[in-house]
Amino acid sequence: MDTQNKMAERVKSLKASAIREIFKIVGQPGMISMAGGIPSPSVFPTEAFAKISEDILANNGTSALVYGVTEGYKPLIEKVEVINKNKNIGKDFDTTIITTGAQQAIDLACKAYVNEGEGIIVEDPSFIGSLNSFRSYNAKLYGAPVLEDGIDTEKVEEILKTEKIKLIYVIPTFQNPTGITMSLEKRKKLLQLAEKYDCYILEDNPYGDLRFTGEDIPTIKSMDENGRVIYVGSFSKTLAPGLRVGFAVAHADVMDRIVVVKQVNDVHTTLLTQMMVDRFLEEYDFDEQIKKGCELYKSQCECMLNAMDKYFPEGVTYTRPEGGIFLWVTLPEGINTNELLLKCVEEKVAFVPGNSFMIDIEKPTNTFRLNYSTMSNENIEIGIQRIAEILKESI
Amino acid sequence: MDTQNKMAERVKSLKASAIREIFKIVGQPGMISMAGGIPSPSVFPTEAFAKISEDILANNGTSALVYGVTEGYKPLIEKVEVINKNKNIGKDFDTTIITTGAQQAIDLACKAYVNEGEGIIVEDPSFIGSLNSFRSYNAKLYGAPVLEDGIDTEKVEEILKTEKIKLIYVIPTFQNPTGITMSLEKRKKLLQLAEKYDCYILEDNPYGDLRFTGEDIPTIKSMDENGRVIYVGSFSKTLAPGLRVGFAVAHADVMDRIVVVKQVNDVHTTLLTQMMVDRFLEEYDFDEQIKKGCELYKSQCECMLNAMDKYFPEGVTYTRPEGGIFLWVTLPEGINTNELLLKCVEEKVAFVPGNSFMIDIEKPTNTFRLNYSTMSNENIEIGIQRIAEILKESI
Repeated sequence: MDTQNKMAERVKSLKASAIREIFKIVGQPGMISMAGGIPSPSVFPTEAFAKISEDILANNGTSALVYGVTEGYKPLIEKVEVINKNKNIGKDFDTTIITTGAQQAIDLACKAYVNEGEGIIVEDPSFIGSLNSFRSYNAKLYGAPVLEDGIDTEKVEEILKTEKIKLIYVIPTFQNPTGITMSLEKRKKLLQLAEKYDCYILEDNPYGDLRFTGEDIPTIKSMDENGRVIYVGSFSKTLAPGLRVGFAVAHADVMDRIVVVKQVNDVHTTLLTQMMVDRFLEEYDFDEQIKKGCELYKSQCECMLNAMDKYFPEGVTYTRPEGGIFLWVTLPEGINTNELLLKCVEEKVAFVPGNSFMIDIEKPTNTFRLNYSTMSNENIEIGIQRIAEILKESI
Repeated sequence: MDTQNKMAERVKSLKASAIREIFKIVGQPGMISMAGGIPSPSVFPTEAFAKISEDILANNGTSALVYGVTEGYKPLIEKVEVINKNKNIGKDFDTTIITTGAQQAIDLACKAYVNEGEGIIVEDPSFIGSLNSFRSYNAKLYGAPVLEDGIDTEKVEEILKTEKIKLIYVIPTFQNPTGITMSLEKRKKLLQLAEKYDCYILEDNPYGDLRFTGEDIPTIKSMDENGRVIYVGSFSKTLAPGLRVGFAVAHADVMDRIVVVKQVNDVHTTLLTQMMVDRFLEEYDFDEQIKKGCELYKSQCECMLNAMDKYFPEGVTYTRPEGGIFLWVTLPEGINTNELLLKCVEEKVAFVPGNSFMIDIEKPTNTFRLNYSTMSNENIEIGIQRIAEILKESI
């Protein structure tokens, strides 16, 4: 039977995440993997969740096990609204819903607002999960480079002038994969452009809470006076990713369609984990939990940067993130980091080559992403030394 | 801002489930709602789940809270495979994955295999969640009536002869909304038709385990020698719906695309609830759990049928299900059950009018769905009496 011939056009060219392929390699013993994208399990509040889950099911079991409403568990929605209000996120016209991770919110926003062939402007590079979601609806992707202070807004406007664009998708804070944070000016500019060219901004902010140095910069959503911004957040990086609890904030009229597509997608997000997050926010110190993560990631990031400063050869540049869990390395032109990865894997160290995050995934680049959140400082230094040795040979 | 103008074509005509609107009414005090579709919370294994969840998180917390693989939690997949193998479901060429409820499996199968404008044959009436999912991808729906022994296969072939059909979607056992079970002959016929006209069957079987009388009939998937059938099941009706744990079984080549779209949809199903189901299957008596539900639903169904036999006026016919949680009532022609519902609600009893489940949802019908799984036998009798009184006035 010819399956290839039967599949929908929208999924024909879609590939399983390259990162997942790399994960198969990095499972090898002795491998130091800087290819991951996982917050540190050492800061997961597992004990708290053990108590909470037992208590919910023992005392309130039925309400955790019946069908829930598509919009999400009301007490959790209210707490998310309070947390967001403190960051000036969410106007009177906005609605908040709980989603099965931020990934679902991104996927459903695209499904609800982008016809096949219509355009989405993305940072190039950007988060592979979002790019693949957009591809899976046959959206047309237009890339704007990520500069030191965030997306190239001139390029964005150039695209908006000539193409039919429905969404501008950005991760303004501690961007995945670059770790770069967009300046306030550019955030304002993007919002102006969305108003001028009549499109939505999809603001993805999974790492925003993980700032370990520097000053907070207001989210684009906090400046959104007209419901231009669909804002997406998550508890995956602050509590635990396996819970699959994220959220979206958008104008009620915009959210209406997202809720309708969520209803046919998974009816509602797992109730037990929604209730667990709710109870955690109620009974435990969420700020303290976030702080614990930030302190760890700060130390890990500094350790990695120090090792890179010390061991990497000249001609190699890299970002110096103020938060999040990633940084981005650029090698001299002409070096193919897909080939470099093969050599690194032989030396038991791994990263994700830059092209995985580009619109044009087939074209090799001279860039790669490093993650520092799941390793000991000792392993970070060893891993960077191993990469440095190979860089010295290759440059 | 003109949101209406911006939304994707695929979701423009999509309405929130009519059933959800009815739920707003049925929350009124004193209302006997036969409009639901929920298994009885009285048989949820809440105590077992309380112990299990605490134990998983206390002793194995990290693995429940990190990211999981898109295909699902391996030990659970293996147990589902064993359960299915005992029903002859799953050949060597098949792959099993865990989904965020059966709803997600249905939604992703459509996304992966049906282009906009391509056809899906459905039972008319059918499950509203699936119909709305198909609508949300702009699939074209073709209905075949549900006869006493299941879908009208002659009508199915008539459609196949003239239209481009990608999927035939059926709920062969204790169908939602009719409670009807498709005969073995028709199951075989459907499979022959899928082979002959080169399309897939999407077999949705959430109620199959809930047989309380009569003999099991083999699933279509159990007869599938060539990977024609995408089979979808769920723990929502046998354990608890809030867990959001379902599964799909399909030819590995077919599943490949479903996994790719699941990855961009929610990365993976919540790990904790997957692990809870796994541990339940490991440590508790799943057959006993199913039996408990079946005994309850048998008594409730018999009670409802007895009350209908006793109180309903002549000219009213209804199905006599051998399992599941629904039955289907047909009134004399010309009676509009949307109008009837308004009168019933005044008398504090509710059902779902038949048109909600039809392809043409706007056209009123003389049918309605009754659910019996969440009421005391006393309330079932009172509710049926109330409906009967209004029927006597209306016929």
